[in-house]
Amino acid sequence: MKVYFSGSIRGGEPDRVWFQTLIRYISRHGKVLTENSFGYSFEEEASFDDAWIYERDVEWLREADAVVAEVSAPSLGVGYEIAKAEEWGKPLLLLYREQPGRKPSAMLNGNKALEMLVFTEEEDALKAVEGFLAPLKGRSRVSTSP
Amino acid sequence: MKVYFSGSIRGGEPDRVWFQTLIRYISRHGKVLTENSFGYSFEEEASFDDAWIYERDVEWLREADAVVAEVSAPSLGVGYEIAKAEEWGKPLLLLYREQPGRKPSAMLNGNKALEMLVFTEEEDALKAVEGFLAPLKGRSRVSTSP
Repeated sequence: MKVYFSGSIRGGEPDRVWFQTLIRYISRHGKVLTENSFGYSFEEEASFDDAWIYERDVEWLREADAVVAEVSAPSLGVGYEIAKAEEWGKPLLLLYREQPGRKPSAMLNGNKALEMLVFTEEEDALKAVEGFLAPLKGRSRVSTSP
Repeated sequence: MKVYFSGSIRGGEPDRVWFQTLIRYISRHGKVLTENSFGYSFEEEASFDDAWIYERDVEWLREADAVVAEVSAPSLGVGYEIAKAEEWGKPLLLLYREQPGRKPSAMLNGNKALEMLVFTEEEDALKAVEGFLAPLKGRSRVSTSP
């Protein structure tokens, strides 16, 4: 199973430690296509060609069996990817960490077609990831059997 | 002509004065469907029902003849709306203000199907809006003539 993990890179306050925890956890269930996108410094990442990033990410998104998006920090790219994943009918889980004085995006939280977990404990988010991916892995196994 | 103006609300650092300047400027060419979305305090805006916001905004986006998106601040909703506008074939102009130590979203800037103006002078952004909307207004007039 291939999983596209989406999270803020150039946008607001990415939580790198948490992203790595999530990526390691998702890796138990399948290949995280974007796992190397989150290890760069701002300077390294900013040196990449934008068209190359866009084309690589869109290709990964197309081939993904599932999408996990971390939506605690604002990000144009993550919002764009969620809409594309919805358009292409990808199973999609959104994770939002409760923050004082903040609210999740109305365009995501108000869309009944999207599943968003609002969490305070990281353990609850990991359990939601487990509950989301485990049945998909079963389905993907069935569909590739002869 | 109906124009959907999109900009950060709950996301990163919305520039309210600049947004109002843009909305007033766009209003010379047509109705700005979202013009009342940018005048609320955080508390007022956060008190609205997310599903109501989502459904209203998606309906406006569907009926828009053109979309102008301010992408200087990160925003999940704006990224989502840009992807929807692209999916629905809406004419789309993105405006990004140069900021030290920042870069525009790679997913937007790297997508050759999207037109992004990177500006330092607001006057240049307003000129780009003029150049984007004026020909559309002509087209819209022609298509509604008997």
